Amino acid sequence: MKLRRVRARDWDWRRTPSSDPLARAAVEEMVAAVRQEGERAVRRLTAEHDCRPEALAPAWSFAVPRERLQAAWEALPETLREALRAAADRIRRFHEAQKPQDVELAGTDGERLGMVWRPVPRVGVYAPGGRAAYPSSVLMNLIPAQVAGVPELVLVSPPSGPDGFPHPLVLAAAYLAGVTQVYRVGGAQAIAALAYGAGEIPKVDKVVGPGNLYVALAKRVVMGDVGIDSIAGPSEVFVVADETANPAWVAADLLAQAEHDAEAGAVLVTTAPGLADAVEAELARQLADLPRRELAAKALADWGAVVLAERWEEAVAVVNRSAPEHVELHVAEPRRWLAAIDCAGAVFLGPYTPEPVGDYYAGPNHILPTHGSARYASGLSVYDFLRRITYAEYTAETLVRHTGHVTALARAEGLEAHARAVEIRRQGGGAR
Amino acid sequence: MKLRRVRARDWDWRRTPSSDPLARAAVEEMVAAVRQEGERAVRRLTAEHDCRPEALAPAWSFAVPRERLQAAWEALPETLREALRAAADRIRRFHEAQKPQDVELAGTDGERLGMVWRPVPRVGVYAPGGRAAYPSSVLMNLIPAQVAGVPELVLVSPPSGPDGFPHPLVLAAAYLAGVTQVYRVGGAQAIAALAYGAGEIPKVDKVVGPGNLYVALAKRVVMGDVGIDSIAGPSEVFVVADETANPAWVAADLLAQAEHDAEAGAVLVTTAPGLADAVEAELARQLADLPRRELAAKALADWGAVVLAERWEEAVAVVNRSAPEHVELHVAEPRRWLAAIDCAGAVFLGPYTPEPVGDYYAGPNHILPTHGSARYASGLSVYDFLRRITYAEYTAETLVRHTGHVTALARAEGLEAHARAVEIRRQGGGAR
Repeated sequence: MKLRRVRARDWDWRRTPSSDPLARAAVEEMVAAVRQEGERAVRRLTAEHDCRPEALAPAWSFAVPRERLQAAWEALPETLREALRAAADRIRRFHEAQKPQDVELAGTDGERLGMVWRPVPRVGVYAPGGRAAYPSSVLMNLIPAQVAGVPELVLVSPPSGPDGFPHPLVLAAAYLAGVTQVYRVGGAQAIAALAYGAGEIPKVDKVVGPGNLYVALAKRVVMGDVGIDSIAGPSEVFVVADETANPAWVAADLLAQAEHDAEAGAVLVTTAPGLADAVEAELARQLADLPRRELAAKALADWGAVVLAERWEEAVAVVNRSAPEHVELHVAEPRRWLAAIDCAGAVFLGPYTPEPVGDYYAGPNHILPTHGSARYASGLSVYDFLRRITYAEYTAETLVRHTGHVTALARAEGLEAHARAVEIRRQGGGAR
Repeated sequence: MKLRRVRARDWDWRRTPSSDPLARAAVEEMVAAVRQEGERAVRRLTAEHDCRPEALAPAWSFAVPRERLQAAWEALPETLREALRAAADRIRRFHEAQKPQDVELAGTDGERLGMVWRPVPRVGVYAPGGRAAYPSSVLMNLIPAQVAGVPELVLVSPPSGPDGFPHPLVLAAAYLAGVTQVYRVGGAQAIAALAYGAGEIPKVDKVVGPGNLYVALAKRVVMGDVGIDSIAGPSEVFVVADETANPAWVAADLLAQAEHDAEAGAVLVTTAPGLADAVEAELARQLADLPRRELAAKALADWGAVVLAERWEEAVAVVNRSAPEHVELHVAEPRRWLAAIDCAGAVFLGPYTPEPVGDYYAGPNHILPTHGSARYASGLSVYDFLRRITYAEYTAETLVRHTGHVTALARAEGLEAHARAVEIRRQGGGAR
């Protein structure tokens, strides 16, 4: 399997999330309908888009009973339950370590200033159904919110099986992580229901979680009426490898990325020209009996590449200019590389940290910035479910001492009432 | 001046940022033009929208020379320079205290996990011109970015004076805070130029700063191609006051908010029914000779209110349900209140901390969540200019020990290449 070869200096990596004006117009209409008509519109859209005419019956409830979650969990093979438990423990432990502290600061003149953290009161998590039903993603969304202390966690996922309930793996993961409520609703109507409330589905303060184009567009439409997480584009890995790298392992890691979907990007960046041939030979060998080989081969053909760098610095620059979602470092001194990496979502150090370990298990979040957004954004974390409230507390003496400065600034901006609100404190009277 | 009176249990506070489909279509067209044509479109739009036909001449440069910044600074009265310096020092000190630490965590089985913070490489700050030219806002945007370590800080502001350069107060504040470059460009075309690059105006990674409707809409359009800050709605203060409050001070603080614009919200929440009459009498008295009395009176009539609470808990609930941008606590035990406040942008404790102290001077940021977005968002901070990169580093032994769990999860999700990427490490070979 031959990959496109590019010299580092010629490398350009630009990916944009797909846009579709027709889909956008359709989604705007769907969101407006839910906003105006509430539950009625959600029922209608569920009947139409999810082919669930039964949702039109007023007796059909969106709520998924707690027992269904438990049953889904208990129906899993014990090996999978154990693996999910171990993963959840690790994800929880890592996100606990992210939790920030409140800050209080004594000012220079007796005033006190501070910042306190508060969890978002109510969060909605979207979990896709069908082939994209990933329990790992449910854990990666729910656990940071829980660790942040979010008191109400609402999960929505489309009715997917013949029983009209969400995918059992989604329900099982939600049971393990612990949610407040689960509703069987998907698509743009689910996002709108969470943003504005619709019958039994409560309005939330923030909506997170991956979804298809409709879900992504709907999040963009409701943004500002409710908080949203980042909007995901195609996934990608950059494997940086020097002459110490094992070509079979590099190839296996490129394939693990390429099997995601036809737009997945798998790029080898190397200072070792001989490595590229060996990796290509391994790709051909390993592709042969891969269940998703057609998808992976297409992704590699369209979005795969080998970038040849002459020096270490050049390879680092390729990574930083591309701001990839995932970076693997198959190099002799991965820590030295980590220190030089400025733009990336998550980094996997050394030959024994294949990206799938991070996708499922290691602890850091797998919801990461795509399409170059690692230049300004970060992976999902407890911070996404926390808010900061800042405060200030002046004493009478501090205020008097600084009145001149504050009023000079207020009057320079033409805000006389601002200046007077400070000066009036000098006229005595005090608090009663 | 009579304010609308509402019982706490009947209180509802919903504000939405203005939307305007015609303006949105116009802005989408402007952004698309800049994206396609670059500098040429920016010149044309500047000529049209800012009435600057001279911008059409290729020799006309958007760059504002460094000497202009210095000259604007030196032309300020010394008292104002001193006040700005003092404010900048306090803002810097508070934001320094926000800076988070990198985290490294030893896993349970010899693996290492971590999170490192990196500044956004290049940030664009928008500063409005004309009557909304607020030097305090320039400081509040630039200083947190600087403290975060952002290496390139680009300021844009519309040509505003007869000389065709931005407002001198904007330039002076930019000089004091320290910017990399300043360009004289405003409106939607400025946001698009920062998002995509246009001639001498460089593409940035994130755009922040307040602006008019066109600027806000443009930020929404470019979002995802570049990072943006939150989109601001109308400003507001909730003054919580018990029987210890001084009515003249409460009235002065309500007026300081009301003078901002006709949509500014100024709400008194009180458990002391007698206080409302006294505050209203003071409002009438203080309004009489206020330069912006008409604006302030209109804001109070449209968006002012007294909310009467029977108990402490009810007053707290009014605040939390409303999630106001600013909260002042004119109460006997402000710390007790702070602990109970869950949703607010910034809190001002006690009678000697009028909000203008926070607007200009105290240190915490004055760019705060509006229209109830304090339920999911926070004020501007160093965090807005930092990114997190997470990492994981497994050893051969750790990977082998956990292979079973990872492959169970991968196969449950139907991702065979993910499982194989882990298993292949067991087949030996090692790194070379």
